[in-house]
Amino acid sequence: MNATMKDVAELAGVSRSAVSRTFTEGASVSAATRLKVEEAAQTLGYSPNALASSLTTGRTKLIGLIANNFQNPIFLEVFDKFTRALQERGLRPLIVNLTDETDPANSVRMLQQYSVDAVIVASSTLPPSFAKAFHDAGVPVVHTFGRPSSLPEVHVVGIDNVECGRIAARELMARGYRQLGYLGGPEHATSAQDRLQGFEEEISKQSDVTLTKAFSGAYSFDAGRVEMLRQLAGQSAEAYFCGDDVLSIGALSALRDHGLEPGRDIGIIGLNDMKMACWESINLTTIHQPIELMIAASVDLVEGMLLEPDRYPEARIFPCKVVERGTLRHTPEA
Amino acid sequence: MNATMKDVAELAGVSRSAVSRTFTEGASVSAATRLKVEEAAQTLGYSPNALASSLTTGRTKLIGLIANNFQNPIFLEVFDKFTRALQERGLRPLIVNLTDETDPANSVRMLQQYSVDAVIVASSTLPPSFAKAFHDAGVPVVHTFGRPSSLPEVHVVGIDNVECGRIAARELMARGYRQLGYLGGPEHATSAQDRLQGFEEEISKQSDVTLTKAFSGAYSFDAGRVEMLRQLAGQSAEAYFCGDDVLSIGALSALRDHGLEPGRDIGIIGLNDMKMACWESINLTTIHQPIELMIAASVDLVEGMLLEPDRYPEARIFPCKVVERGTLRHTPEA
Repeated sequence: MNATMKDVAELAGVSRSAVSRTFTEGASVSAATRLKVEEAAQTLGYSPNALASSLTTGRTKLIGLIANNFQNPIFLEVFDKFTRALQERGLRPLIVNLTDETDPANSVRMLQQYSVDAVIVASSTLPPSFAKAFHDAGVPVVHTFGRPSSLPEVHVVGIDNVECGRIAARELMARGYRQLGYLGGPEHATSAQDRLQGFEEEISKQSDVTLTKAFSGAYSFDAGRVEMLRQLAGQSAEAYFCGDDVLSIGALSALRDHGLEPGRDIGIIGLNDMKMACWESINLTTIHQPIELMIAASVDLVEGMLLEPDRYPEARIFPCKVVERGTLRHTPEA
Repeated sequence: MNATMKDVAELAGVSRSAVSRTFTEGASVSAATRLKVEEAAQTLGYSPNALASSLTTGRTKLIGLIANNFQNPIFLEVFDKFTRALQERGLRPLIVNLTDETDPANSVRMLQQYSVDAVIVASSTLPPSFAKAFHDAGVPVVHTFGRPSSLPEVHVVGIDNVECGRIAARELMARGYRQLGYLGGPEHATSAQDRLQGFEEEISKQSDVTLTKAFSGAYSFDAGRVEMLRQLAGQSAEAYFCGDDVLSIGALSALRDHGLEPGRDIGIIGLNDMKMACWESINLTTIHQPIELMIAASVDLVEGMLLEPDRYPEARIFPCKVVERGTLRHTPEA
């Protein structure tokens, strides 16, 4: 196993505290002692570890990255970008899988046992009560993909989902669709509620446009496919705003099963613009969410809270825009 | 912030050591002291954290989960299963993103700073020198998706990739394909090398069967698509063994761009059987790798090493089998 601080102190002929001070930024240690400690550390292949350093600083540099959806390919991009951004700043991403967890109190206990310095809740389906419970338990929190608020209690990084609903409605109506459908994520998810709110609001301005709405069980391929099959078994709409890209891909699969050509026969617009959306066999028209910027902002806020735990909460909200590909018709029908 | 052990000791009127012993399994503490400590802890909302407990046990319960491919959707399933399995055993999954890392020494330094109790290298593309370097640095290692060996130096959990190559060749030849292609993962990946070896070996037994072979830049959609487009620009084979499912999905996209119908015009067989393989729009014939069992075995080995760090290394190798869907023709041509 690795050399310890004790081994280095022994070889260098100094106290353990001197070894600790040598490896603590800003701590006082004489040049002679520093030299002896560094030589001994080199000889033994010792490197000061985060555990040892956390004893001095009270910090573990562990950041809990909380996720509850491993069925949505967007999260592979999310994990990639978060782990890189945290690593670059010397922070350590601890993944906390809260799939199926319903009790915030359980999660609070778990996080306290985990000794994280802060957590990033990366989910729009975990109820806001989770982020709030972590905050109330004294854990610094950033809620990425959270519901934006003009009076945030915890730091929120996200998009304006209500506005995204409006954007989707305007896009579909501009192309002449008149019977619109909403095929949303889970009903309890703030993102699913807010996207519907904006979609409905915009549609209600037009007396000749109808809306059918449905929520699905999860942001997943299977849920999108099943819900679209259900739609096709009844009176389906001319075009659907699907709650996100993976739901859209499930819906596209259902259309093809029915011999329907997306774009030509039924329109689909998604949300996220994940990598798969531009795969040629998918080619999804969707609303782009700037994931990379949102993750950078989240990590900035986390770092800010490590320096200043009581930092005043804020909401960082990023605009979204339509990316046209092949699943909507181009021009209004005559 | 949270109450500390010192706060609890203060309120309970006992020493910090008594607080520590109260929360350490098997440590000796009087019933009266335990009661006082538990009451004080309750009042202050204190819960003993892993950091505090690591001081007593020398263990952090952090397990480094090393990955270097966030472009392959199979890894979302891998992260889900690993994080659940580790959490269930009270271990904490720390994701270490080694995308683009080429120097094992860098990674060793990083892991030592991370204070992990053990690491799981979840990759078939990271050179075996990485797992070996972690092992040599005294970090207990399990290499999942590693190259099986009859003389393993570190614990390996995987499949017999050479045998998978043979299975693919036999499957294609049984369906009457005679011009076969290998569209593998990156040339430096042990999985890509071994799958080709078995594929080539089996084909060489048949004098009337030809083989063209190509490696791609990564196990990713884009790499599979580009390599198949290159094949189609030249003299393409009748059927391809693609190195894995995501490469296959990229290859399918290239076929469709050329107006070719997978199965009818050109055969494709993949490897992994990830969830997306059975999406109706993909419907990939592939070789199933039992990911869930492999992950359970990996976590078992990690737990074993926490109890017995010098545990004799072993290789746990799981058999694979063909799952027929729609991307190979059914019967030999007359």
